[in-house]
Amino acid sequence: MDIKVIAFDADDTLWVNEPYFRKTEEQFCELLSEYLERHALERELFKTEIDNLPLYGYGVKGFMLSMIETALKISDKTISLEHIEKILDLGKNLLNEPIDILDGVEEVLEKLKGKYKLVVATKGDLLDQERKLKKSGLSHYFHHIEIMSEKDDANYLKLIKHLDIMPENLLMVGNSLKSDVLPVLNIGGYAVHVPYHITWAHEQIENTIESEKFKSVEHIREILQDL
Amino acid sequence: MDIKVIAFDADDTLWVNEPYFRKTEEQFCELLSEYLERHALERELFKTEIDNLPLYGYGVKGFMLSMIETALKISDKTISLEHIEKILDLGKNLLNEPIDILDGVEEVLEKLKGKYKLVVATKGDLLDQERKLKKSGLSHYFHHIEIMSEKDDANYLKLIKHLDIMPENLLMVGNSLKSDVLPVLNIGGYAVHVPYHITWAHEQIENTIESEKFKSVEHIREILQDL
Repeated sequence: MDIKVIAFDADDTLWVNEPYFRKTEEQFCELLSEYLERHALERELFKTEIDNLPLYGYGVKGFMLSMIETALKISDKTISLEHIEKILDLGKNLLNEPIDILDGVEEVLEKLKGKYKLVVATKGDLLDQERKLKKSGLSHYFHHIEIMSEKDDANYLKLIKHLDIMPENLLMVGNSLKSDVLPVLNIGGYAVHVPYHITWAHEQIENTIESEKFKSVEHIREILQDL
Repeated sequence: MDIKVIAFDADDTLWVNEPYFRKTEEQFCELLSEYLERHALERELFKTEIDNLPLYGYGVKGFMLSMIETALKISDKTISLEHIEKILDLGKNLLNEPIDILDGVEEVLEKLKGKYKLVVATKGDLLDQERKLKKSGLSHYFHHIEIMSEKDDANYLKLIKHLDIMPENLLMVGNSLKSDVLPVLNIGGYAVHVPYHITWAHEQIENTIESEKFKSVEHIREILQDL
């Protein structure tokens, strides 16, 4: 292995994210519980989010707009404007959630700093991710933050071009097999999967991955064993 | 001058942007004309946008959310849900506007390519800007696109660190004195102002700029004279 750059996914790899989205989704379902039962509502919201993904991309603002659109749709435009206001509030609260750094993250970064160039490679909204990185107090470990509109092969190729390294010089660490592992292996890089207990449906895949350049660990501390 | 990287602002420097926002704003005012006259409505919308800027940042999705919030506020929650639906449509249409490349841009890029590293340095939403760059057909001229959450001194310093150059190796070309010129001069880079006929109120400044590293031109073609 000749790893030069270690890229960390942010949400649910460095800090808690999906549980906050789930909490917001629950509050949204609660708000509209008179119109549709929870599972049907979740399905409608997910469908709207996926339909809007090419247009809105990832992040809280797109999620807010999709919640509003779903509320209009499932109520056949009979909800009150207080509902709309409340959805805006839910989204703003989500943007203001505190940062809970995941166990072991700081220890790992502390041990790796100076030995490798560390970057954050994440989807979502630049402003949100910058704010979260700042609030986390972890900024000083990282050379910079890379925001990718989609974590696919093409964008990982752009990333290594941008970092001026070869694919085999990249190790990606993240909680999503779909976004953090598969495309990185596809382009010839190394990837470590650190599963998080909750994964958004859109990030779930069925594949079993077998590759010498891949490892799945239970805890982020285990990545230190090979580095 | 020892320019190595020329960074171009995107919206209203490479292609038309602000007129599309204005058109959407006009449609929004039209939609709510029974509640408030246009200038008062524009002021309310602007105020909401600025209040939300730290949370939402720049881009169409934040603009959509601010339009909805303004509509709730100025109507005292008496508008119909059809209004909300129409605002969502206005925003989606704005996201799907065609790309009109500004006169002279392609000629300038063609002459500079190969001689300098050309990048796009822009605010706004990564996905939006990537989509616009792709639709523009100009991608092949640029090494990459840099999205900045705010175009301030700190982020331009990050940009040159990221590009691995000295400030005096950077020339920034853009239509906003506030975002494309002042912070670049502050950190020691070169800047050319190419005014566009419409500027968002938030980008307007009163200062007169005097610097040997600054030039204002009427047409983007004029930047070729010094390069």
